[in-house]
Amino acid sequence: MGPAITTIIRVRYGETDQMGVAYYGNYLSWFEIGRTEFCRSLSSPYREWEKQGVFLPAVEAYVRYKNPLRYDERVLIKTSIREVTSHSITFDYRVMPEERSRLAAEGWTRHAFCGPDGRLLREPEPFHSWLKEISRSSLEEVVEREQ
Amino acid sequence: MGPAITTIIRVRYGETDQMGVAYYGNYLSWFEIGRTEFCRSLSSPYREWEKQGVFLPAVEAYVRYKNPLRYDERVLIKTSIREVTSHSITFDYRVMPEERSRLAAEGWTRHAFCGPDGRLLREPEPFHSWLKEISRSSLEEVVEREQ
Amino acid sequence: MGPAITTIIRVRYGETDQMGVAYYGNYLSWFEIGRTEFCRSLSSPYREWEKQGVFLPAVEAYVRYKNPLRYDERVLIKTSIREVTSHSITFDYRVMPEERSRLAAEGWTRHAFCGPDGRLLREPEPFHSWLKEISRSSLEEVVEREQ
Amino acid sequence: MGPAITTIIRVRYGETDQMGVAYYGNYLSWFEIGRTEFCRSLSSPYREWEKQGVFLPAVEAYVRYKNPLRYDERVLIKTSIREVTSHSITFDYRVMPEERSRLAAEGWTRHAFCGPDGRLLREPEPFHSWLKEISRSSLEEVVEREQ
Repeated sequence: MGPAITTIIRVRYGETDQMGVAYYGNYLSWFEIGRTEFCRSLSSPYREWEKQGVFLPAVEAYVRYKNPLRYDERVLIKTSIREVTSHSITFDYRVMPEERSRLAAEGWTRHAFCGPDGRLLREPEPFHSWLKEISRSSLEEVVEREQ
Repeated sequence: MGPAITTIIRVRYGETDQMGVAYYGNYLSWFEIGRTEFCRSLSSPYREWEKQGVFLPAVEAYVRYKNPLRYDERVLIKTSIREVTSHSITFDYRVMPEERSRLAAEGWTRHAFCGPDGRLLREPEPFHSWLKEISRSSLEEVVEREQ
Repeated sequence: MGPAITTIIRVRYGETDQMGVAYYGNYLSWFEIGRTEFCRSLSSPYREWEKQGVFLPAVEAYVRYKNPLRYDERVLIKTSIREVTSHSITFDYRVMPEERSRLAAEGWTRHAFCGPDGRLLREPEPFHSWLKEISRSSLEEVVEREQ
Repeated sequence: MGPAITTIIRVRYGETDQMGVAYYGNYLSWFEIGRTEFCRSLSSPYREWEKQGVFLPAVEAYVRYKNPLRYDERVLIKTSIREVTSHSITFDYRVMPEERSRLAAEGWTRHAFCGPDGRLLREPEPFHSWLKEISRSSLEEVVEREQ
């Protein structure tokens, strides 16, 4: 599993819907923020991955919604690695409001390693080794950072 | 299973990202359009459900991304019912570009029956009976409609 | 002024906010849909413009909100040309619910003609001539099309 | 004019489009974040306004786009008051990347004071007095805060 990186966001007004809570589609955007900060903290900014020709398109996504989030709530996104294979990486996420101890949602996304042309890459370096190393780390360091 | 309703949308410019394809979070919005049109075609407009005090917040969502979609592509969203229980309904979705025969994505979402206060409702009528009846229908009618 | 193209959309659930109406930021996405259909109807699909190296980044946008729009309302977006100069084009938009005669919003956006590198282009052909011709047309044709 | 509040955000991947820069519609969401933090810093959180029955629907919005923003850039949103009348308030915004001195965009939004029913309110207290006082302040305090 390795370390989890906690990123803090705030629910935007435009992210609510007429039910008065955060719209269910936004969680995938928040997961994306989580893995952006995970990469920045533990390997290198994801924008550098793309500059070096490594893209991570999503191939699967799953969300389990547990308790709704409201406008202006500060929300923790805890991101960690679930699994690294030769062709893909799976991230785990836990989303919870800062001031309440109830989980708001949890989920995971799986991403392929691809080149700029969309072709699958096998163990793209140095990123693949970093991810392997991070995922094996016994470290349970929790870094908190604003987005 | 019952019938599938096919809704047609077009990928908006703002729905693309810098990878040049539709952003992965948008598929949940498209699923929502699919079930909106499913309800309109086969039972009653979802806005009527809410007016009568029945809400369908998402409790789970899953997407399997297969082939990317591009700006301005016309896209078919085929929506059907997978399962109706006393407290929830699960919709299935298949997303494919109109001019290509390859599946772009598929997935499902599960929704609780809730009242305006967020409490679970058991078999809310007349909606629950409609859904049960639709899901048992041997009809394979495919209605195509623009959003 | 020339002709106006009317495009029909439907307000998505995720486009509402906790005020129970369409979020103010979405109108710029709807304007974008309006000009996409304008170009498709009267010159060539905007994706062809980009393929031929002509991009239209926004340089100004203005919206006047008059009456709120609700979930599931069908909405007409009437798009026309206000002005074409050597380096930019300005589109006008009128947004109104299909079943009510009250204007929901109106506005305009100005766009530069740019190359793929972001540099300004002067009167890019054949697009510039098309736009000039359309804008001078005395035709008041109103084409209605779903998105 | 009074003080400006500077809020820092980061451009999300999903906020880019296929031009490789932030989509033009997102600036209105960022303006919203700016005024949320403005209210929190200088009067009371906007969610409290709504709880006390005062809503601020947008009646006008204007954006002047000057230089594109890219994925993962940290962006400063400087928000200040332009004008307070008996029925409306106008906010000014300046958007600029943290690491470059060039303005990315500037603009303003005007908002009506409304009740929960959408009716115009005249000088709703205590908010109206706060805004008047803030706007008259000679203070040029710049508070920087993460979103």
